[in-house]
Amino acid sequence: MARIADIGQHEGQTVTISGWIDNSTRRGKLLFIQLRDGSGRMQCVMRKQNVDEETFEAFKRAGQESSVRITGEIKADTRSKLGFEMQVSEGEVLQSAEGYPITPKEHGPNFLHDKRHLWLRSRRQFAIMKIRHLCVRAIRNFFDDRDFTLIDSPVFTPNACEGTTTLFETEYFGRPAYLTQSGQLYQEAGAMAFGKTYCFGPTFRAEKSSTRRHLTEFWMVEPEVAFADLDDIMELSEDFLVEVVAYVLEHGREYLEILERDLGPLENVQKPFPRMSYDEACAKLAELGTPVDPEDDFGSPHETVLTKEFDRPIMVHRFPTAIKAFYMKEDPTNPLRALGVDVLAPEGYGEIIGGGAREDRIDVLERKIDEHQLPQEAFDWFKDLRNYGSVPHGGFGLGLERLVCWVCGIKHIRETIPFPRMIDRLTP
Amino acid sequence: MARIADIGQHEGQTVTISGWIDNSTRRGKLLFIQLRDGSGRMQCVMRKQNVDEETFEAFKRAGQESSVRITGEIKADTRSKLGFEMQVSEGEVLQSAEGYPITPKEHGPNFLHDKRHLWLRSRRQFAIMKIRHLCVRAIRNFFDDRDFTLIDSPVFTPNACEGTTTLFETEYFGRPAYLTQSGQLYQEAGAMAFGKTYCFGPTFRAEKSSTRRHLTEFWMVEPEVAFADLDDIMELSEDFLVEVVAYVLEHGREYLEILERDLGPLENVQKPFPRMSYDEACAKLAELGTPVDPEDDFGSPHETVLTKEFDRPIMVHRFPTAIKAFYMKEDPTNPLRALGVDVLAPEGYGEIIGGGAREDRIDVLERKIDEHQLPQEAFDWFKDLRNYGSVPHGGFGLGLERLVCWVCGIKHIRETIPFPRMIDRLTP
Repeated sequence: MARIADIGQHEGQTVTISGWIDNSTRRGKLLFIQLRDGSGRMQCVMRKQNVDEETFEAFKRAGQESSVRITGEIKADTRSKLGFEMQVSEGEVLQSAEGYPITPKEHGPNFLHDKRHLWLRSRRQFAIMKIRHLCVRAIRNFFDDRDFTLIDSPVFTPNACEGTTTLFETEYFGRPAYLTQSGQLYQEAGAMAFGKTYCFGPTFRAEKSSTRRHLTEFWMVEPEVAFADLDDIMELSEDFLVEVVAYVLEHGREYLEILERDLGPLENVQKPFPRMSYDEACAKLAELGTPVDPEDDFGSPHETVLTKEFDRPIMVHRFPTAIKAFYMKEDPTNPLRALGVDVLAPEGYGEIIGGGAREDRIDVLERKIDEHQLPQEAFDWFKDLRNYGSVPHGGFGLGLERLVCWVCGIKHIRETIPFPRMIDRLTP
Repeated sequence: MARIADIGQHEGQTVTISGWIDNSTRRGKLLFIQLRDGSGRMQCVMRKQNVDEETFEAFKRAGQESSVRITGEIKADTRSKLGFEMQVSEGEVLQSAEGYPITPKEHGPNFLHDKRHLWLRSRRQFAIMKIRHLCVRAIRNFFDDRDFTLIDSPVFTPNACEGTTTLFETEYFGRPAYLTQSGQLYQEAGAMAFGKTYCFGPTFRAEKSSTRRHLTEFWMVEPEVAFADLDDIMELSEDFLVEVVAYVLEHGREYLEILERDLGPLENVQKPFPRMSYDEACAKLAELGTPVDPEDDFGSPHETVLTKEFDRPIMVHRFPTAIKAFYMKEDPTNPLRALGVDVLAPEGYGEIIGGGAREDRIDVLERKIDEHQLPQEAFDWFKDLRNYGSVPHGGFGLGLERLVCWVCGIKHIRETIPFPRMIDRLTP
């Protein structure tokens, strides 16, 4: 059985392809069948005189998404994008479909998400999923090729330390368990054993807001490196994004074209990324007429204003300690600032990476746990990492779907995951 | 900074390595430090006359797992396994550890799992995690190289169709949601869009038994192929296991040696695997003195007896329809048998793969849903896949931890995942 993706190898040969009818039009004694087989799309031309009556009639009647098997000769065809078409000599309709719900007319997003199991067949959703796959492959290659060890963090976690408002809870044999929001703390244990580790799996957040940037279930990759400082983590983030975007540009151009993605901003993803401290970013924002309270975090609108000033991702580092997690290392030269970094994607996409150096001093860590009003005993194992061979270390987290959204240049994060889960969406 | 894994490139050079003291012994004015840095282990010899007094004293006092930075010349050393050792000229103890809880003496499994965050540093656990990583890489390469598209199945699912006894439930914005036990149904939707897909993520089962084969959270890879029949799925399973095991043998020999794994059974993993129908397997089991009721499933003890007869994995196909899931395709030549296959690992490890052909006839599928007393409406989307372009298709599922357990040749599945979750284990 031949595949459309490899059809160029079969020019002049007679081959059989199994697939689905994407579309078909009749002009008299000719049927122009747009066939898709999961690897690509091609035109198959069926002439009434070349097939038996019954076959022609069956194909004439077969609706969109009918499954078929078609045999014919592959001919060069300069008019088609693929460069080839098939002159059909035999065909069989395996299952004749009627009333396929997704038609070329416009459908609302809710309807399309209700039919997500079918919508994935559309050219645009197909292209997005292919880009997602390429991103995943590039991410894993990046870490595997640099000798990071994959240490899957667990999904079930025992504590709801930072409040339960965005946590999903489950009953775990008579006690509560919570679904992970980040694998980082476990990666810190990993980095002390393996030097460099990463995890890459689903994480969960009970997001009560239904925006175009939020999912309740999304994939995160989280590398962690022993003996790394903030500068190392910034360099790692930079190398990482450069390599991942280059991989997609190399292997996914056809899909980016389907999405009509402007390639310029992706081709600009080259080192060095502009770096600025949070304080510098605030000064810049004030200059641009959108001031931030310097002890407060800046939000999505500020990110948009800031990133529009640059042609590539930017790195904002040294945030106010007060707004950051307890485990982030205080800047020894200014404890009011923490050694963290956010990488903001251009074109208004905003934060895609958050990371930094971790607090490796046991006394400071214990103080921070108290200051954040967290229970010390829940972190006994985490503190062990500082009691037994503490070293400077750091890492980052990247949300896969935000990356894919930006790389694809699309608006809605819900289209970047095969079966999105949101506050109002748990099906199909 | 040099890494122990690459130390051979630095013979004769003076380099600095950062890491942890795995062990150290003093003989008079010599300290023999076993250093680990996450990439490997090597001996560093510190002579009192070559470093300052303070440094020698600090290293003398530093306990197991103290973090250190050591500089010295790399010399060939034929007595060590690595082939090299370091003659230390400078050193710094970054954090002097005392009372590391895991000592060379024997500890019980419960204690070790309580200290899992530290236990991962041990040579044996290190080796198992490295094998796990190699298995994951080989699995993804296998599917990526064959043009399967990664389609992550969701973790949150809306229905508890097959009973809630082994399902974890969570409250999802006022309604119940369940954690996935298999991504297969979603892969079927994927295969109709992409031809060949796979998912690879954590799955969940509220296993009330605490055996050496069960985890509540484990990783599964599930490929699905359009236009595939049972024979295709058997061949895919075979190719898959051959390639994954060969990859581990090629890249993981040093870790298999640490585990004292007998390589013979792994080197035997070559095509063809013996194939037998369930009825043939039952006849064989009767011959071997362990009869099975032919309308019942066979259990772990039967699998062990059967697999011990062969030197490689075996494939048992065509199980009684009555004991198999509703979506498994009935054998058109005998509806009492279903077109499924289990792949059983040798050496008593038992089932690692389960798969087969899926029911692609809408009328039979609807009847099966009724026979299994499942609610038709919960499967409306799944039935759409049969209404709109149904095609023969199939796939399989492989539990990562069972594979790793067998490849490592170890007894307990809980050692094959970084942070195991079991009925009595939710920490650290």
